Amino acid sequence: MPESIDAPRLSLTSSEMRRLADHVVALVIERFDTKSDSPIGKRPTKAELEGLFAEPLPAKGDDPMRLIDQAVEQAFGNTIRVDHARYFAFVPAPNHFVGAMADALCAGFNAFAGTWMVGAGAAQVELTVMEWLRQIVGMPDGAGGLLVSGGSMANLTALVAAREAVLGEDFGHGAVYLSDQTHSSAIRALKVAGFAQRQIRVLPSDKSFRLPFSALQAAVSEDRAAGLCPFCAILNAGTTNTGAVDDFETIVPWARSEGLWIHADAAYGGLAAVSPNQKPKLAGLGEVDSMAIDPHKWLYAPIECGGVLMRDFSLLKRAFKILPDYLLDKERDAGEVDFCDHGIQLSRSFRAFKVWLMLKTFGVEAFAESVDHNVRLAEVAGERLVAKGFELAAPPSLGIVAFWHPEADSAAHRRAVDRLIEDGFAMASSTQLKGRTALRMCTLSPLATKEDVEQTVDKLAQFVLASRSH
Amino acid sequence: MPESIDAPRLSLTSSEMRRLADHVVALVIERFDTKSDSPIGKRPTKAELEGLFAEPLPAKGDDPMRLIDQAVEQAFGNTIRVDHARYFAFVPAPNHFVGAMADALCAGFNAFAGTWMVGAGAAQVELTVMEWLRQIVGMPDGAGGLLVSGGSMANLTALVAAREAVLGEDFGHGAVYLSDQTHSSAIRALKVAGFAQRQIRVLPSDKSFRLPFSALQAAVSEDRAAGLCPFCAILNAGTTNTGAVDDFETIVPWARSEGLWIHADAAYGGLAAVSPNQKPKLAGLGEVDSMAIDPHKWLYAPIECGGVLMRDFSLLKRAFKILPDYLLDKERDAGEVDFCDHGIQLSRSFRAFKVWLMLKTFGVEAFAESVDHNVRLAEVAGERLVAKGFELAAPPSLGIVAFWHPEADSAAHRRAVDRLIEDGFAMASSTQLKGRTALRMCTLSPLATKEDVEQTVDKLAQFVLASRSH
Repeated sequence: MPESIDAPRLSLTSSEMRRLADHVVALVIERFDTKSDSPIGKRPTKAELEGLFAEPLPAKGDDPMRLIDQAVEQAFGNTIRVDHARYFAFVPAPNHFVGAMADALCAGFNAFAGTWMVGAGAAQVELTVMEWLRQIVGMPDGAGGLLVSGGSMANLTALVAAREAVLGEDFGHGAVYLSDQTHSSAIRALKVAGFAQRQIRVLPSDKSFRLPFSALQAAVSEDRAAGLCPFCAILNAGTTNTGAVDDFETIVPWARSEGLWIHADAAYGGLAAVSPNQKPKLAGLGEVDSMAIDPHKWLYAPIECGGVLMRDFSLLKRAFKILPDYLLDKERDAGEVDFCDHGIQLSRSFRAFKVWLMLKTFGVEAFAESVDHNVRLAEVAGERLVAKGFELAAPPSLGIVAFWHPEADSAAHRRAVDRLIEDGFAMASSTQLKGRTALRMCTLSPLATKEDVEQTVDKLAQFVLASRSH
Repeated sequence: MPESIDAPRLSLTSSEMRRLADHVVALVIERFDTKSDSPIGKRPTKAELEGLFAEPLPAKGDDPMRLIDQAVEQAFGNTIRVDHARYFAFVPAPNHFVGAMADALCAGFNAFAGTWMVGAGAAQVELTVMEWLRQIVGMPDGAGGLLVSGGSMANLTALVAAREAVLGEDFGHGAVYLSDQTHSSAIRALKVAGFAQRQIRVLPSDKSFRLPFSALQAAVSEDRAAGLCPFCAILNAGTTNTGAVDDFETIVPWARSEGLWIHADAAYGGLAAVSPNQKPKLAGLGEVDSMAIDPHKWLYAPIECGGVLMRDFSLLKRAFKILPDYLLDKERDAGEVDFCDHGIQLSRSFRAFKVWLMLKTFGVEAFAESVDHNVRLAEVAGERLVAKGFELAAPPSLGIVAFWHPEADSAAHRRAVDRLIEDGFAMASSTQLKGRTALRMCTLSPLATKEDVEQTVDKLAQFVLASRSH
């Protein structure tokens, strides 16, 4: 056999590794040190990036230090900083340094969290983390779940488990109910899971942007009368548009008596329950059958980190477990949890580690204080907005405020978003509410200050008025 | 308002960050330095870990350095090292240091790769990487796709896109064909996508563990005659059990003439095509309609990193795009790719960066050489196995060899897996082939040597014979 079989391949020495790692660490620390000071980032057009990175498959190698610098400038440098203290658009992603270091360790160790056989220690940590998350959102003892990539996968995982548990293989007669404020990932999840458009009832929200109980009751009765099987309602704990929270306390007990599965999309708002001051706003949430949560939102974990919680944990396995011959080795003891049997992924990274490390490093009280700060900042924004002549679409809720200026048209609102990006100080985004264009701020960053929020409002006021068509 | 609103929350100083990062880097470098020398790891029972990490939600914080040390010992230390040079079980995960540093940078920057508006530079890199991957597997110009968490999500994404493109919303009459060697994630994907068991035709593989063309033709004819709609066949490019490659050259042209969608599960074998020596073994693969690939296998990316490639890229958007009001800001230019519209995730990490950085750092020729090495090592294993009295279930294929000892029963083979773990030198796994228990080795690590493989075979021979019931 050829000599070369044991020659080093793709190899780096310890000192090359050290040099590369030091460079990455310096870049990451600089990134964290500039979360409040740097410009918000760039939104280049396709034409501006055309040609960048467009090259043939490289035959030979290059210096990774130089390549990283190129990427920091041309790839990362051509994005908007979702981790910035004044990124108030969409839903911010204010990752914490401790979580980032946890991800770095997992990538370096290539931790595998799919089976107990290979990743027992990782599974044990995930069990602990899911138990903590269960307690935070107030689900009953015995509820459980797993971590996934984010809210989209959490909604999909829960809704497939619900479909299997309630309807089984033939689900063409099932109907699902949700308000027009529900996140698009829930509708996409239903499509992926094979539901036809005619099975998905999107109900108009009320003036508080909540699912109207009476409309839900009426739709369910109507469908039953038509021979359909109403099987699931999706409620929101913190809508993306306005932070609205559906009326869990009223709807869940009724739904249970009707045999309806209640899934909560709590990806945005659920983990606000870590604060005793916010938990009452989510009253009744813990009683749902399944829930999507997102530690990469309010626990400040780096993306990706979502979670699914099920009132009956065993339903995940019922929906997802398939045991092929080549995995028979892993089957030993029913008490050993193979998380790959409870969701869609087989190869799974050890997401629980970052959540564990952050909660252990700071304790829940620090997170509670930070969540209260985030919620208060949206109220601060609301006060300033009113002072600047804006109208609020609804009272600020769970760190989100939506608003419009009565003297400016839709186009002016949308142009203000662009102007804010060009200005570089901050970012906000727009949406449609009751047929009207609104601006939104989501004050999720622990680093954002009262001044950050107020100055952003002032700039928005300036840009909205300056952008009016004359 | 209270003074505390702008007080530091969850904060670390630059020097605390530096100290933590240095610790993580030292641990990661030590991990890489011991990929060939350390024991393979531990497989504790549930009882042994009971109590570890089981504690109430922590109210107060703790020192993250101490916590990381605890986790390295009790969590990571209680796993088997899938990154080890002699981890030959299941499919190894030999992550490369450069890929791990890429993940560290992405976690630190919290790079968001969902929309062009916010993550233009990341999208541009992903376009480049997907173009390179397309070229490697030999799909036609214009094919494209996106990166996902792994093979499970790649199979799901592709099969949902196929379902939408071929059958639309009412797919209860569709039938899917696959061999009994197909990975369980493909069957799970079909279940998630709403297919009933009766729509999934699992055909017995032939003596080379491939899908028999004649059986496929017969099943399709039968189903057509019964009024069903045969719509998709799933072919394998490197089965998990034996590395078998289905006959793409024969089946794909026939399938196209029959209007059948061909999905390739090439998660294990597809990227072996990076080597000109292996590519002929995958002849015809590039002609399929959709394909799952896994850069976290043969490009040595840290988990998670899978990919979907579609002959018609636009079909992903057709299946997955939903445009809610709060994302209207992102809609500017059709040339700007929002990867969140082409798959299930909205929040997406920048997985393309690690693939880009590794391919640029080493060039494809180095990967080709390493893949050839991996493939050759399974042949080395085969030679040694035969010399030690084992029989091969099939000739070694694409770095996988499956085998049994004619003088030992099933239980002895399975016990040998446990004995090997206890011994600590290496790991292999077992499976069932044609009703018989076999052992498997998958020689995917670039660091594994001829001696690593031969000594592992010698130990397996010893343990299988010693484990026989008398």
